[in-house]
Amino acid sequence: MTKIDYRKILEDIKPTESEKKKVKALSDYLINFINKKAGDEEIYAEAVLVGSVAKETWLSRGPGSDTADVDIFIKFPLNTPLDYLKKNGIYLGQECIRNMEGRHEFRYASHPYITGIINGYEIDFVPCYDIEKSKQLKSAVDRTIPHTIYVQDNLKKEQIDEVILLKGFMESVGTYGSEFKVGGFAGYLCELLILHYGTFQEVLEAASEEWKPGYMIDLRKYGTASNFDEPLVVVDPVDPKRNVAAALSLQKMSEFMVASRNFLQEQSSTYFYPREIPADLKTIKEELEKRGTKTLILSFKTPDIPADALYPQIKKTEKSMMHLAEREGFKTQGSDSWTDEKEKVLILLEFDVWMLPKIMKHYGPPVWSHTHQQKFLDKYKNKTWVHGDKWVAEVGRDFTDVQLLLEAALSENKIGLLKFGKHIKKEILEEHQLIDLMEFLESETTQKDVLEFLYKYLHKNWSLWRT
Amino acid sequence: MTKIDYRKILEDIKPTESEKKKVKALSDYLINFINKKAGDEEIYAEAVLVGSVAKETWLSRGPGSDTADVDIFIKFPLNTPLDYLKKNGIYLGQECIRNMEGRHEFRYASHPYITGIINGYEIDFVPCYDIEKSKQLKSAVDRTIPHTIYVQDNLKKEQIDEVILLKGFMESVGTYGSEFKVGGFAGYLCELLILHYGTFQEVLEAASEEWKPGYMIDLRKYGTASNFDEPLVVVDPVDPKRNVAAALSLQKMSEFMVASRNFLQEQSSTYFYPREIPADLKTIKEELEKRGTKTLILSFKTPDIPADALYPQIKKTEKSMMHLAEREGFKTQGSDSWTDEKEKVLILLEFDVWMLPKIMKHYGPPVWSHTHQQKFLDKYKNKTWVHGDKWVAEVGRDFTDVQLLLEAALSENKIGLLKFGKHIKKEILEEHQLIDLMEFLESETTQKDVLEFLYKYLHKNWSLWRT
Repeated sequence: MTKIDYRKILEDIKPTESEKKKVKALSDYLINFINKKAGDEEIYAEAVLVGSVAKETWLSRGPGSDTADVDIFIKFPLNTPLDYLKKNGIYLGQECIRNMEGRHEFRYASHPYITGIINGYEIDFVPCYDIEKSKQLKSAVDRTIPHTIYVQDNLKKEQIDEVILLKGFMESVGTYGSEFKVGGFAGYLCELLILHYGTFQEVLEAASEEWKPGYMIDLRKYGTASNFDEPLVVVDPVDPKRNVAAALSLQKMSEFMVASRNFLQEQSSTYFYPREIPADLKTIKEELEKRGTKTLILSFKTPDIPADALYPQIKKTEKSMMHLAEREGFKTQGSDSWTDEKEKVLILLEFDVWMLPKIMKHYGPPVWSHTHQQKFLDKYKNKTWVHGDKWVAEVGRDFTDVQLLLEAALSENKIGLLKFGKHIKKEILEEHQLIDLMEFLESETTQKDVLEFLYKYLHKNWSLWRT
Repeated sequence: MTKIDYRKILEDIKPTESEKKKVKALSDYLINFINKKAGDEEIYAEAVLVGSVAKETWLSRGPGSDTADVDIFIKFPLNTPLDYLKKNGIYLGQECIRNMEGRHEFRYASHPYITGIINGYEIDFVPCYDIEKSKQLKSAVDRTIPHTIYVQDNLKKEQIDEVILLKGFMESVGTYGSEFKVGGFAGYLCELLILHYGTFQEVLEAASEEWKPGYMIDLRKYGTASNFDEPLVVVDPVDPKRNVAAALSLQKMSEFMVASRNFLQEQSSTYFYPREIPADLKTIKEELEKRGTKTLILSFKTPDIPADALYPQIKKTEKSMMHLAEREGFKTQGSDSWTDEKEKVLILLEFDVWMLPKIMKHYGPPVWSHTHQQKFLDKYKNKTWVHGDKWVAEVGRDFTDVQLLLEAALSENKIGLLKFGKHIKKEILEEHQLIDLMEFLESETTQKDVLEFLYKYLHKNWSLWRT
């Protein structure tokens, strides 16, 4: 039925035998080092390999791109005090990275862990509890070992290829990854979908034909699916109280459904590869001009917080600015945001209506409401009249230009008008720039990634089609 | 309690004894003429004096202003065929006017009647059935005779002054008259309010203290008030199935409540006299300029139809134009309309937002709706993307300027976009002008009444206050 040569694609995106050997050899060495160290120092802990490397389901973009993320979990007995676990878990990871002369970085999920760059691989060392049942769960990371075991026990050898095809497709159409930046499908979720439907092709067929918001998958028939209200529900086979698709947004679920349908129609192998975004300054400027809208761009320095904290804070700021503008009577066309996660955050706000008259109607209490109307009349005096049975007052608009409104709201003075995380607030108050996007494009030698961000804003369907 | 010298006001607005005598003499003469004529020609009909002249409750604005409207009803027995009644009723009125060498004009209420200008008075000759009970009612005008009798039988002599004060007040604050132009209080309704509350002062106290939408008055305790859903319900003492306040709009009811409260506080006799509207071209232009809105004015020739048909048609057109603009994404600030009832109709439309970008988002079916989405995708092709679980298409806006939109909708071509009565439609298609109000004010030597209309639009509370 399909015209796609999946074998050919797998040659490009599946780790080769030598690549697997190399990664396995490295992770075995690291695990042995940690376990020996733990024994030597009488730390009650044991390192194990988990995640996509353990399951052999990772996506590899060919020689030279060692994209395997190695996850080594250091498990402690259930009765270990949390402080002991954190301190010794981090210590063992740190010692291991030091031994390999790698760079290290502290990170934070449900509790702190340590990441090392060793021989070009990014390796996470995560302390956790050694649980047998989901009831024993002490923190979210404790599920990772049971997840790995479940997939290893249930995924057939030939289904590994199906998982890799699904991940490759997801990545290319922009729906792969459960981190806040994407809000898409986690690797474990991809594996469960293959376990449930059998093959890559069957997952796509189901997504394009059957799925809609509220769709439920319950592999082990726990019967708990209806307890969740996220758009897609996939009950965790190792924990009936968890929806594996909890982080999947309605947006990304829908995009996957649409991309699936398009792929099944178009049958193009380009759906498995990264695409060059044809972002060109001149074209973007012309397209913006033609829209006839006004687009502002707010830029400020990226606060030094983890990506999974950063993206929700940026989104919150973006939404809050849009709401403020709408509340004051302006009309928005759309918005988006972008960050390189290191230096710069950009928030784009596009307006259909950005100028308003000086006057504004303000509706008050009914003319028969004796207690309320006196206050209204005292306040607005002879600027009041009657409409239907309500008082109306003509009031002056504080801001007739949306740019001035937002600029005011971004200053110390009026910052209460907006809602954002404290790290972003601090950066914005310290320094920011709010200007017309056209002006921004004139003044900056715009980076390629910024142009790509703008291109994707103007072409929202770009990643979902190939023809 | 009150500081107002009502006696002094009544001197100005109550008909004098000589005025009463003059009107009565004339109407007696006319009635005798008709009754004799009917006898001579064997027409089974009898003329009677009804309305405010019969009840002596008419408002007189002093010498030289003979404002009495004389209503002569020509009643026929209940078993008279309608054709016979119409033909002979009109005939008798016509003969009477001819005899007095007056001008005549045909008019139309529930059926045709004839109006004559005789000795400077406007006199209506209305054929009707001679009913005894409301059940016998054949047409709305048949109630007029029972109304007159009810007021004559129940209104105490000293209450006539109270009625005249109430009518004078209503007229000055702009709430008098049940015709469509005003949508206010009928003369009969004013009389019933005095019958119910006793005095002018008590009516105003009740309106300002007790009234709210849904307020009910049922003088003869029929118990039918809750059958009506108009803002004010006053059950007709001669017909339990009729709400005398049916034509009163919520707007005029509210304005009367507010004006009552203001008068009771301010105690100024100016509330009983016409006010000069300080409409001045230069000031109006300055005020318009300051608002920062855009105001368009549509003008066309008045169609030759009765005022009570004309005003609803104009309002319908005004509302329809506003709705069209809003539907297309523009934002309105307000609207109003005016006519001299003879030559010119003006519709004023004020906009907060009158220009919009070329692009527009159009939301489509959900991505999981298989039947609907294909149509949407076929139609909008690569101009579509996904938002949440919905399809969205970027479509070009047909009209980015509200003036061009409305101009198009007023042409033969697109006239279906608007709703208006056929008489107005004909006039507009024949000739109209839609221009910016500022331009209109430049090009025309604007009449005083047009300036007054604009002044009242800009000062909606003008008639409700005096200080």
